[in-house]
Amino acid sequence: MPDFERRIVAVRAALAGSGGAGLLVGPGADLRYLTGYDALPLERLTLLVVPPTGDPLLIVPALERPRAESQGVSVPIAGWRETDDPFALVPKAVGPAKGTVFVGDRLWAAFVLRLQRELHGLPFGLASSITGPLRIRKDPAEISLLRDAASVADDVALALADERVAGWTERELSRWISDRLIAGGVEHVNFALVAAGENAASPHHEPGDRVIAPGESIVCDFGGTIGGYCSDITRTYVVGPAPDDLREVHGVVLRAQAAGTNAARPGVPCESVDAAARTVIESAGFGEAFMHRTGHGIGLEEHEDPYIVGGNSAVLEPGMAFSVEPGVYVRGRLGVRIEDIVVCNPSGPESLNTAPRDLVELPR
Amino acid sequence: MPDFERRIVAVRAALAGSGGAGLLVGPGADLRYLTGYDALPLERLTLLVVPPTGDPLLIVPALERPRAESQGVSVPIAGWRETDDPFALVPKAVGPAKGTVFVGDRLWAAFVLRLQRELHGLPFGLASSITGPLRIRKDPAEISLLRDAASVADDVALALADERVAGWTERELSRWISDRLIAGGVEHVNFALVAAGENAASPHHEPGDRVIAPGESIVCDFGGTIGGYCSDITRTYVVGPAPDDLREVHGVVLRAQAAGTNAARPGVPCESVDAAARTVIESAGFGEAFMHRTGHGIGLEEHEDPYIVGGNSAVLEPGMAFSVEPGVYVRGRLGVRIEDIVVCNPSGPESLNTAPRDLVELPR
Repeated sequence: MPDFERRIVAVRAALAGSGGAGLLVGPGADLRYLTGYDALPLERLTLLVVPPTGDPLLIVPALERPRAESQGVSVPIAGWRETDDPFALVPKAVGPAKGTVFVGDRLWAAFVLRLQRELHGLPFGLASSITGPLRIRKDPAEISLLRDAASVADDVALALADERVAGWTERELSRWISDRLIAGGVEHVNFALVAAGENAASPHHEPGDRVIAPGESIVCDFGGTIGGYCSDITRTYVVGPAPDDLREVHGVVLRAQAAGTNAARPGVPCESVDAAARTVIESAGFGEAFMHRTGHGIGLEEHEDPYIVGGNSAVLEPGMAFSVEPGVYVRGRLGVRIEDIVVCNPSGPESLNTAPRDLVELPR
Repeated sequence: MPDFERRIVAVRAALAGSGGAGLLVGPGADLRYLTGYDALPLERLTLLVVPPTGDPLLIVPALERPRAESQGVSVPIAGWRETDDPFALVPKAVGPAKGTVFVGDRLWAAFVLRLQRELHGLPFGLASSITGPLRIRKDPAEISLLRDAASVADDVALALADERVAGWTERELSRWISDRLIAGGVEHVNFALVAAGENAASPHHEPGDRVIAPGESIVCDFGGTIGGYCSDITRTYVVGPAPDDLREVHGVVLRAQAAGTNAARPGVPCESVDAAARTVIESAGFGEAFMHRTGHGIGLEEHEDPYIVGGNSAVLEPGMAFSVEPGVYVRGRLGVRIEDIVVCNPSGPESLNTAPRDLVELPR
């Protein structure tokens, strides 16, 4: 069990240091990080209020109080009944402090606008400016969960190498991946993208009815959670022998992925990791075909700080975890992406994913 | 294919009528309702901007432009690249109109606060005040999808009646339900809650490692989507003969559910439907044990207007669809909930779910 009390103390200190009136977070990663509570993201208000001094308060719908208690939440809980107004509880929970109200980055507009009325006159900011610096460096227990999650994903990527998928639809392969992730122990499958042939040129293609044929690239990008922590891996496959252009592009992306990973060391700016991967692809003449950033942080959220993107001069520190996932997308023809989760250790990069990164030729 | 153009014309008219400066919606139900686009809810800005006059604009990350195009989006699209600032596109897309900016009810705070800066000086309101009146009355094609979704859920509820679940964990039964929903054709399983014995007294219990035993109540509440439209059904089961107290409580909830359904007619206030179900439970002496509202609207979202709750004096109209789901929860002992999706037809209520509502005794 993480030391939630220590985390809340750290939030209080950050609030005091930045003149904050309070931290207000709804269901999601911040709430789980600070209390362990995995709440349902519903229209009924669930809100953790952490004032700069005094006790935090978790406001929950009365019907979800048993759920919160069964998850071992140790902060005081205020349950509200269906015909109560839960927003009336907030100003008292925030207390008399003036200053910025930091709301969860993913709190819904319906809640944000209402809270702005209840706390009229106070400026609003984002909770990530308080919780981000805490969450961005993972402790050993968090790294261990990320490693467990990566290991399940690796097993699925490896098992796929033995499957005869020609004739399957993208959706069927996506389902196969989801089933394997669950069998491997994930609590939730976050996504299982499968894109074949010309669809592989769309980085966020939704798996559909397209049938997988020999000789075309198959990009598989999937992840799930272990103990709330996410995995995210991408491998590119082909049924039978790979055509020359696919082999060439894959070789470029493989070198770019290695260059990005190798650059991920303490003191290196995020944008330099992006540049390390991008330079390889640009030098090979595919610069325009790599139209997304190199990576994103990962933890209790699939995508979180630090973002490995041009213009982000923030510097890597030990304990940061993020994807390194360059890709090349040739419209109408093919796509290749290779992705690992990498941890910045004091001594250098460690790839949590270990499944082979080469172009896997599946049996026909 | 729905008539998206007609829907956007209706939004424009509503904006003009309420002095709106524009409608700004991110990934989710409003976006899908207005464009057909099923967007990924990620940290990169995806935003449909509908001004009161002139063309709408869909702002998407460049890497997701192929995804949007493949889904047949017909409004103009502006793609932004990773190092662009997508928020700079918004003021121009909104245009010169002054008035309220209506943002999607579930738009994340990170976007809301940023848009408030970009559109400084304009008041913000919720998109539901514009789209809600359109979405709350379903057209025949929407009802048909809700019926299809309900039918898949019914099949799963029926199939479960033949299973020998004693010895399974709640999580295993939840997985079984999810698998059956997918086999039945749903695109996404939205949830599959299973709560056994004393856990059944927690309305939103997360399925866990508790093993199901004979003689205890098993509340199963699940749903998925067909064509984007949701199902939501709850049935209560027991392995082997039901104990007397469970049988008594189930009989009360069954009568309450029937009373609520029967009250759902055009012209009746939502709160009266709630009261019809609640009165039955209160008369039986279980009023305190029914601690949630009677129901919620359903469509592209699991929970949407109209809410069937005390204090909601809005009046039912033909085409409205919502759950009727009373429950009784006896802490430490048992829970019972029975839920159908009901459509308010001109002639009266129609239950889209038809699976038997009685206390199903599963084989030992």
